[in-house]
Amino acid sequence: MKLTCTQENFKKAIYSTERVVGKQITLPILENILLETDNGMLKISATNLEIGVFLKIGAKIEEEGKITVPARLLSNFVNNIPNVGTVSLSVVDQTLHIESGSSKAQIKGLQAQDFPIIPEMEGEFLFSLPAQEMKEVIPRLAVCVSLDSTRPELTGLNFVLDKLEVRLAATDSFRLAEAVVTLIKDNSQAYDLFIEKTNSVIVPLNTISELFRVINPETQDIKIGIEESQIFFQIDNVRIVSRLINGKYPPYQQIIPQEFTTKVFLPKDDVLRAVKIAGIFTHSKAGEVKFTVNSEAKEVYVQSKAEEVGENKTILNAQIEGPDQEALFNPRYMVDGLQAISTPHLVLLMNSGGSPAVLRMVQGEKKEEMLNYTYIIMPIKN
Amino acid sequence: MKLTCTQENFKKAIYSTERVVGKQITLPILENILLETDNGMLKISATNLEIGVFLKIGAKIEEEGKITVPARLLSNFVNNIPNVGTVSLSVVDQTLHIESGSSKAQIKGLQAQDFPIIPEMEGEFLFSLPAQEMKEVIPRLAVCVSLDSTRPELTGLNFVLDKLEVRLAATDSFRLAEAVVTLIKDNSQAYDLFIEKTNSVIVPLNTISELFRVINPETQDIKIGIEESQIFFQIDNVRIVSRLINGKYPPYQQIIPQEFTTKVFLPKDDVLRAVKIAGIFTHSKAGEVKFTVNSEAKEVYVQSKAEEVGENKTILNAQIEGPDQEALFNPRYMVDGLQAISTPHLVLLMNSGGSPAVLRMVQGEKKEEMLNYTYIIMPIKN
Repeated sequence: MKLTCTQENFKKAIYSTERVVGKQITLPILENILLETDNGMLKISATNLEIGVFLKIGAKIEEEGKITVPARLLSNFVNNIPNVGTVSLSVVDQTLHIESGSSKAQIKGLQAQDFPIIPEMEGEFLFSLPAQEMKEVIPRLAVCVSLDSTRPELTGLNFVLDKLEVRLAATDSFRLAEAVVTLIKDNSQAYDLFIEKTNSVIVPLNTISELFRVINPETQDIKIGIEESQIFFQIDNVRIVSRLINGKYPPYQQIIPQEFTTKVFLPKDDVLRAVKIAGIFTHSKAGEVKFTVNSEAKEVYVQSKAEEVGENKTILNAQIEGPDQEALFNPRYMVDGLQAISTPHLVLLMNSGGSPAVLRMVQGEKKEEMLNYTYIIMPIKN
Repeated sequence: MKLTCTQENFKKAIYSTERVVGKQITLPILENILLETDNGMLKISATNLEIGVFLKIGAKIEEEGKITVPARLLSNFVNNIPNVGTVSLSVVDQTLHIESGSSKAQIKGLQAQDFPIIPEMEGEFLFSLPAQEMKEVIPRLAVCVSLDSTRPELTGLNFVLDKLEVRLAATDSFRLAEAVVTLIKDNSQAYDLFIEKTNSVIVPLNTISELFRVINPETQDIKIGIEESQIFFQIDNVRIVSRLINGKYPPYQQIIPQEFTTKVFLPKDDVLRAVKIAGIFTHSKAGEVKFTVNSEAKEVYVQSKAEEVGENKTILNAQIEGPDQEALFNPRYMVDGLQAISTPHLVLLMNSGGSPAVLRMVQGEKKEEMLNYTYIIMPIKN
């Protein structure tokens, strides 16, 4: 292999791929990045066997070839050299020679033949999602994904594909977040046929994190293809391939109440602050914050108490529709839900009797409820 | 106790004191902050027995009194309440009641009588140091302080007091940093008398870190008093009291060469980058980076090599006075020294034969060597 490419493209390519590379004691080649010439371009790939990432960048190729080199080493080198425009790469004796301006390095590699094959997509992309909306939505959902491997189906993000939209959901069974994103069909007929058979898939959280990471401020859309037990994402020139999680996602729609007796409109920052304070006055992660809705006084009391430590109470002015309510929540889960709210005001929807509560954003003068994002939190039984 | 003070002053006071408070399993009261009324003001103190910090803020006092409460809890509460101007504090049944706007808390405390006494200064301040210069200088020195408790005298910063200036030094015996700061005598006669007896003290690194932390952008000077085995710092309204480290600081001046055969003028960022790259290509912390000074070519080569990993070389253009040199350095120590340089260019001073090398800043068109900061690094024997 012997080629030249721009330093900027090479650096971006390393950045987009290196993160899937982890410490791999049993299979050292997985710590490497694969560099190979491919139809007049330089293809850069990395995989941890669960997720594969690759992309191609323009290159002036003098000699075809391929090699794998340690990802961290290459990345550190590329990030520390001054920007002089171009990088020259060549392979001699299983060693990558890399040169840029006055900086030179030789990095010992491993045979490209031993690098695992990253699956290629056989068919076409089915649909696209708006990239910037996804960039906004992913963190709001990711916080609810379960880390408990005894229920693998909860360790990913559920995509429910519908005619016009995708419902994305995450839950750890204590709270649940759902977002609705409008989709663009890339191949309308194929898509409609596909969702007749498969309309729900579960994508591992790590894959979603990678996807989030490679979305640039300029990225327009994310093309998505699903084949067998694999999902393919195309984000600009980056392809992410991931296994899907086997299993059936719980029918969570059933637990979201359709009606609420009490609607409480609150300024987001004030509630967040009050719940954070309440969280300080609890002994452990399993603490409790009490919300008391006083509709006559138009006030909400946020309070907590821990023996030996002390207690606290914040009084919030609120706009309240419906009768008084009282419920206990885990302060950490409540903070997660509140932090996902990006509007200055929110609505807290409650029923009595230990029924789940809901947080939604509101917009405009009339504080109109927005239905594209729902955070559901289970109260703690008293 | 019953009083009101401004939220801003109270918050700043907690911030200035809380950091010396650590997890104290044997003596729980050390996790607390002492609040007490003192001559019409609120005095706030914290100590870990090695360092004590206290300050007084204005308050409207209705009832005298004192209490100690957990520092973290108080700090978390104060940092999360909205800014409404004032805070009311009162003590009922060994519990601090704190109220600010719509936020209220009750924090259980411990008896103030059990709080350790922080030593008061008997005499006057001896001298002052310019605060902003110290803020700049401390990080450059702190990096060299030894963490090895078997040589306690190296775990602090050495202050050598002279007629007009203080020499501050730190070393872990692999490298040494020295800064010279001009002092202002607060009491000329007392100072001159004092340094006849004691002209060298060693201040623990933790104390120096606290000092650094409480210097504001507006702070003018740091007043310093030394009594018995204690040092007192006054930074605006904050008093820091610390024990001094017993022992004799090594006579390090002897190891700084007075003459150098070779002077190498280099652009700082380029050398730093080259050494960082070299650091990547070493196996462990004990790696080596080779500096080769080629005076004919007016170039410096920075290179490293590690079996099984690879090798690298950066060519730097340099202005060189004197003969060729070659030396091996620990890349981490070299990075620390380079990062302390705040001028765009630096001078590397070398002698042959394993003699220590020196880094200094240079300024102006003529690249004049600045003598107020010296970083000395021992080469690795080949």
